Amino acid sequence: MSAPTDEVLRFEPDAEGDPTALAYTFGGFAPLVSVRPGTVVSTWTMDCFAGRVRTTSDLVSQVCDPRFLNPQTGPFFVEGAQPGDTLAVHFRSIAPREARGVSTTVPLFGSLTATHLTAMLHDPLPERTWVYEIDRAAGLVRYDALDSAYQVDLPLDPMHGTVGVAPALGEVRSSLAPGDWGGNMDTPEMRAGTTCYLGVNVEGAMFSLGDGHARQGEGETCGVAVECAMDTELVIDLIKGGPPTAWPRLESDDYLMTTGSARPLEDAFRIAHTEMVGWVRELTGLSAMDAYQLVSQTALTPVANVVDTTYTVVAKVAKQYLRGATAMSGTHERLRRR
Amino acid sequence: MSAPTDEVLRFEPDAEGDPTALAYTFGGFAPLVSVRPGTVVSTWTMDCFAGRVRTTSDLVSQVCDPRFLNPQTGPFFVEGAQPGDTLAVHFRSIAPREARGVSTTVPLFGSLTATHLTAMLHDPLPERTWVYEIDRAAGLVRYDALDSAYQVDLPLDPMHGTVGVAPALGEVRSSLAPGDWGGNMDTPEMRAGTTCYLGVNVEGAMFSLGDGHARQGEGETCGVAVECAMDTELVIDLIKGGPPTAWPRLESDDYLMTTGSARPLEDAFRIAHTEMVGWVRELTGLSAMDAYQLVSQTALTPVANVVDTTYTVVAKVAKQYLRGATAMSGTHERLRRR
Amino acid sequence: MSAPTDEVLRFEPDAEGDPTALAYTFGGFAPLVSVRPGTVVSTWTMDCFAGRVRTTSDLVSQVCDPRFLNPQTGPFFVEGAQPGDTLAVHFRSIAPREARGVSTTVPLFGSLTATHLTAMLHDPLPERTWVYEIDRAAGLVRYDALDSAYQVDLPLDPMHGTVGVAPALGEVRSSLAPGDWGGNMDTPEMRAGTTCYLGVNVEGAMFSLGDGHARQGEGETCGVAVECAMDTELVIDLIKGGPPTAWPRLESDDYLMTTGSARPLEDAFRIAHTEMVGWVRELTGLSAMDAYQLVSQTALTPVANVVDTTYTVVAKVAKQYLRGATAMSGTHERLRRR
Amino acid sequence: MSAPTDEVLRFEPDAEGDPTALAYTFGGFAPLVSVRPGTVVSTWTMDCFAGRVRTTSDLVSQVCDPRFLNPQTGPFFVEGAQPGDTLAVHFRSIAPREARGVSTTVPLFGSLTATHLTAMLHDPLPERTWVYEIDRAAGLVRYDALDSAYQVDLPLDPMHGTVGVAPALGEVRSSLAPGDWGGNMDTPEMRAGTTCYLGVNVEGAMFSLGDGHARQGEGETCGVAVECAMDTELVIDLIKGGPPTAWPRLESDDYLMTTGSARPLEDAFRIAHTEMVGWVRELTGLSAMDAYQLVSQTALTPVANVVDTTYTVVAKVAKQYLRGATAMSGTHERLRRR
Repeated sequence: MSAPTDEVLRFEPDAEGDPTALAYTFGGFAPLVSVRPGTVVSTWTMDCFAGRVRTTSDLVSQVCDPRFLNPQTGPFFVEGAQPGDTLAVHFRSIAPREARGVSTTVPLFGSLTATHLTAMLHDPLPERTWVYEIDRAAGLVRYDALDSAYQVDLPLDPMHGTVGVAPALGEVRSSLAPGDWGGNMDTPEMRAGTTCYLGVNVEGAMFSLGDGHARQGEGETCGVAVECAMDTELVIDLIKGGPPTAWPRLESDDYLMTTGSARPLEDAFRIAHTEMVGWVRELTGLSAMDAYQLVSQTALTPVANVVDTTYTVVAKVAKQYLRGATAMSGTHERLRRR
Repeated sequence: MSAPTDEVLRFEPDAEGDPTALAYTFGGFAPLVSVRPGTVVSTWTMDCFAGRVRTTSDLVSQVCDPRFLNPQTGPFFVEGAQPGDTLAVHFRSIAPREARGVSTTVPLFGSLTATHLTAMLHDPLPERTWVYEIDRAAGLVRYDALDSAYQVDLPLDPMHGTVGVAPALGEVRSSLAPGDWGGNMDTPEMRAGTTCYLGVNVEGAMFSLGDGHARQGEGETCGVAVECAMDTELVIDLIKGGPPTAWPRLESDDYLMTTGSARPLEDAFRIAHTEMVGWVRELTGLSAMDAYQLVSQTALTPVANVVDTTYTVVAKVAKQYLRGATAMSGTHERLRRR
Repeated sequence: MSAPTDEVLRFEPDAEGDPTALAYTFGGFAPLVSVRPGTVVSTWTMDCFAGRVRTTSDLVSQVCDPRFLNPQTGPFFVEGAQPGDTLAVHFRSIAPREARGVSTTVPLFGSLTATHLTAMLHDPLPERTWVYEIDRAAGLVRYDALDSAYQVDLPLDPMHGTVGVAPALGEVRSSLAPGDWGGNMDTPEMRAGTTCYLGVNVEGAMFSLGDGHARQGEGETCGVAVECAMDTELVIDLIKGGPPTAWPRLESDDYLMTTGSARPLEDAFRIAHTEMVGWVRELTGLSAMDAYQLVSQTALTPVANVVDTTYTVVAKVAKQYLRGATAMSGTHERLRRR
Repeated sequence: MSAPTDEVLRFEPDAEGDPTALAYTFGGFAPLVSVRPGTVVSTWTMDCFAGRVRTTSDLVSQVCDPRFLNPQTGPFFVEGAQPGDTLAVHFRSIAPREARGVSTTVPLFGSLTATHLTAMLHDPLPERTWVYEIDRAAGLVRYDALDSAYQVDLPLDPMHGTVGVAPALGEVRSSLAPGDWGGNMDTPEMRAGTTCYLGVNVEGAMFSLGDGHARQGEGETCGVAVECAMDTELVIDLIKGGPPTAWPRLESDDYLMTTGSARPLEDAFRIAHTEMVGWVRELTGLSAMDAYQLVSQTALTPVANVVDTTYTVVAKVAKQYLRGATAMSGTHERLRRR
């Protein structure tokens, strides 16, 4: 655990420059800034299309280069972070930068279509783009159908789809992929008020984030949420030592959450629930079978994504069932209060 | 749609008699009672162990015969039901019959263990039985650890794990299996206040139900919920004709829900979400791609079970996003008011 | 093991009568004939379309009733067969009855298309029918393209896609489904010269067979092989007691084979290989880990089907690596010599 | 296509030096040598344990560092190779360097055990090491059981488990992972006499190879083959332009082969078969549906691995069914003759 600092760091991604200078991978990129644990960072992120999809006539396959999708803000070098430590990232606020978001279909991408991995002989589904008006004051996102006059307001619920660190084993992974390093998990649980815990694999952790969503459904069915650039304030902290964090975890005021990212989807479930059984054991002193039983009766299990290179499942257990157990040395509570 | 009737039918399963006389399958069983559509039925269901697991020393593999697990109350012959119709079952109340429930592990069954299908060389996990005190007045279920002094109260949230009709194609399916006929879906959404819609495959539908849970986590991680006998009041109604109901659907006051039961788990997701896209299309007049988009941004996707012969996923969309669309000719609203 | 008899039984399926009188399920059907173990049976089977697809303009969705697909010859009641015994079925000959076979695509069926379980928003692939000329004397099957002049001769390799007994737990399963009772496994290994072992679940076993293929690729990619009616001679024998046969096994002169039928496909693999490790252990006295190792270096693993309600994988180990071990009390060798 | 050259290049991996200097990834590594297309390369590869497992008492978890598993020989920079080109690698000979190979179990790795992705609550299976005597003259590999006196000779069938190029999208992937760049596919088809085709993603292709197996079963059930250092002679050639090679393909004198690496295993099947349908189309001029049909009746589908980070399936079609079609501009035939 690190002592809090008074630093507030403003970090501007180089959105105007050469797109090849931005980070499109976790790992494989020199850090752009170094932060001391406990630092409050104020920054912003580009949308997953790097702003190239603006109107309903902008189709991803025509305006985007597949090599430059999902740009990340970062990486941040976290001082003192060593393999085996746990990075804690608390989201203080996540707010759309503009009064507009976009969603699209993308050929051979999504959960209800043949894809490059679930390969079939079908032609791709039609490629379309939807533009959502975002009313930040009212907290609303307006769905506007393309083929009929249907409109409906949905609650604004901003989150980051992609949050992660450099992977282990010297790997460099596309920002489109989720895994044990975090990455493109696409869970709506990654909202303001939540702390995300990530196991550190390399010196400095190399944290980055992106892929802001004004809102998304669980599973991100068509593969694309209401994508928008985000103004985000977060606290980056470090938990030295302790049990290793094998897979990303989240903590809100009410819930502990584990994640698993794998295919098939039941393996993502198995990872998230095995992680939760282990965490409950650690926090309560219950035996393995007793923890398995408690998780079996209390876990919520929202699907996160069924569209990315691996699929993500979240397991949630209400803290109230853990009788006052304190996770991660109280990091969430401490960062929450700042 | 059928006219409501004033009948209230009390139906007693033959729990004292020969266990081989009870229904352990969907299909393959002569109906025990005939009901007119609109009938209110008051009945009860045995727990999935037919009451044979009573104390922490009762192990399933010792006290239960695998041929007689998960007894169903029914089948009910629904007058006038023909293949292609939709059965509507509205749960008015579901209440534990006793102040006690049980949960267990079962060798080679559950989501975090090798099973007969996910076959491996591991020995089974330990077989254990937990007994839960149920406080119906307070609405609580007490978890009591076996290997330490840990106790915690959980909210009572009664539901039926198994609800279904006779399958198509002349099949007879074990009450342990979920599928397009319903069956052992094990979703906590099957609670009082909810209407379940089931496609009719044979004359009379042959509806039955069982497998009461005082509560369960999403996914039913260890394979067994807080199992208990249930006193249940339900309305059995019939929707003649209309679009066929290919997979079970649910409706609560706030949500429309679709289900899919398949392996791998992503296929359960795909079924539930494809069904939801189709339902939203039908109810709103949106185009297929517009409905796909709306579902992508609004669906909740809780996992139901990752332990049965196939896995079940639920997709939920809030009715408020469908601008007043009325599903199934207003059946839920009508049955709700009775 | 039963003593061989001199009986040769000719059994004629009632192909001219009411299609509803034929068996389209495993289980749920009264036996049509009773056989003593060791009986040689001479019979024939209809093709999976019950002969309704005859020309390239016969489309399955137009000429077939989905309730009456894949008719089976049987069931045969095997005298003395009790649950826990093993049925042995040795195929002496399998020969196309006609000089013609057919293959088709079927909407939303096959491995490279969206299906009812791998549900998606695509339209079905085109529905087509191919007719194959079969030259029984030359042992050839002629592929004739529909959209160009391409023709090529393929080796005739007749087999039965569907071979099974009544399932356990009182289930009745469609003849389109494969599982631990056998059924629609669709493996090209089920050819003449092979013995198939099936665990008996009900008194009399209730064996039936059908779905002749003049040949098929491994995986049955489009879901349909070169389908044809078959003249088949088989020996039906019974192995009393002994280790239960949990999943269908096959034996040829050179190989022992196990099968698994499940989704996802890796579970089918896991079943087949776990079964093989157990069988090798039993036959050689090797420890579990030694048998795991030997199977790891010697197994062949052809995919059987990736199109049916569950997928089937076969594991094969050459008998020569088992140092003279004799499986199933030498049943294959004994039946082979008759 | 490139003109053949007379170069024969001897390349020695730096096996004596710092293990951190060897390549354990595809991508992310500076090339060690540059080759002109058409070059014959004579080299050798370390075994997957970098020689650290020598006796039955050497356990992987004790003698190996997980960061330094599966060292690769390379990368080779192929002159003129540009993204979109296809690398052709023809294996002239693959021979064990020593008269001994090893196999092991590895905790939480393999197909019949819980793993880090198929996460469960089981303890790992026992960790064991087997040593195989290799008789190169007789072409035999001797299996020697650990727990009993059982020995049996198996045919020597040398192959490379890991063959690949740098991935696309700037990714760097562990040599333990298979994918569209090749990598750890673990197919026994990668034997001498075979040509492997790999799509080029980066300038120079950055080809490397390793993971020699004296033999392996299909599926590599326990996760480890008969591992040994290999002396290998190969021809590295380049096919400029042409249809992109999305997934690795192989060609032998008799077969065309496609591969898919994904989870679940049916997605690996779908990739391999979709690729084969496309390849057959391209080579024969058949329509998509006609090619789908021909592949359905002719493909062999051996499983390659069900143990790595993704699983690999191979689809094989005999060239004789393609009526003299010539793949990849006759590259295999040309390299075969050198």
